[in-house]
Amino acid sequence: MKIAFIIYDEMTALDFIGVFDPVTRLNTMGFLPDLQWEICAQSKIVKDGAGLGFIPTKVGEALHAYDMVIVPGGFGSRKLMNDAGFIAWLRTAAPCEFKVSVCTGALLLGAAGFLKGKTATTHRNAFGDLQRFCSSVVDQRIVDAGDVITARGVTSSIDLGLYLCEKLTGPEVKERIRQQMDYEHTA
Amino acid sequence: MKIAFIIYDEMTALDFIGVFDPVTRLNTMGFLPDLQWEICAQSKIVKDGAGLGFIPTKVGEALHAYDMVIVPGGFGSRKLMNDAGFIAWLRTAAPCEFKVSVCTGALLLGAAGFLKGKTATTHRNAFGDLQRFCSSVVDQRIVDAGDVITARGVTSSIDLGLYLCEKLTGPEVKERIRQQMDYEHTA
Repeated sequence: MKIAFIIYDEMTALDFIGVFDPVTRLNTMGFLPDLQWEICAQSKIVKDGAGLGFIPTKVGEALHAYDMVIVPGGFGSRKLMNDAGFIAWLRTAAPCEFKVSVCTGALLLGAAGFLKGKTATTHRNAFGDLQRFCSSVVDQRIVDAGDVITARGVTSSIDLGLYLCEKLTGPEVKERIRQQMDYEHTA
Repeated sequence: MKIAFIIYDEMTALDFIGVFDPVTRLNTMGFLPDLQWEICAQSKIVKDGAGLGFIPTKVGEALHAYDMVIVPGGFGSRKLMNDAGFIAWLRTAAPCEFKVSVCTGALLLGAAGFLKGKTATTHRNAFGDLQRFCSSVVDQRIVDAGDVITARGVTSSIDLGLYLCEKLTGPEVKERIRQQMDYEHTA
């Protein structure tokens, strides 16, 4: 299992880290030693919406070889959904088994054509904008439409991460990770 | 109000980002335009416990001029609590009005002497280790001991961030930020 965490300028850092934390614990806590990931971007440095700088591990490389791509939201998504270069890059993820988004990251999956005929969700403020990319927008914290999994607003990223932990390894591992994260809530 | 977000190698990124998101929204959503922050470290690049690279905005500079310092936890804290250079640097935060920690970040506040005579909390796995630095360790998600505020495990970082939003601006702003973060839980 190889995961690409997509990052871009003016993303919301918590959209990214909220899912990054539980999913990478599958490896760091020893449950899935073969789990690998890269932080993938189109530039050598990425700054979130509050100016925080991140360093990707892969810059501008195609995404087709990953099993899963995870795309965060943030104000940057509004620009990038109309950025032909970025969307062409995201489309290289077409062969990946799972395309996953948090918050307005769904607009990017949508602009790449991955949501056609699918049920999906996004930040509540963006429900109207997502409509044209999918068959229906639903008000749920996580929507699993098979090869596409979307999560609603910012903090639903954590619920998504735990959901993916359960999907990949079952409920017992998910529960141990949830406890280690001191997360008292379930989606 | 000027805040120093401390970062260090092998920190837990979600400890940092969970409080960074709501607190920086005080500025980015327009509620506290004068709020400023820096990302402060002892090295030019910091990697979290899963190898994710962050870029600090201040490297090795003294912390005395901030109103608040916020220290995340993570496995790196176990090394740094015995690192005289790091602890001496953290002690430059002594004049700051608020010393704040998430998870095992409390061990670093403790090693710096900031928890003497105080009630505090940390990750449940570290309750025993925190004992010697403070008057009592309590099993609460957030412990406000005046100039020292500590949060329990990883995701309590988000609750802490919202708590600080309310402390700095009142319940209405906190509620608007909570909604924007799509956070359905309260501490």
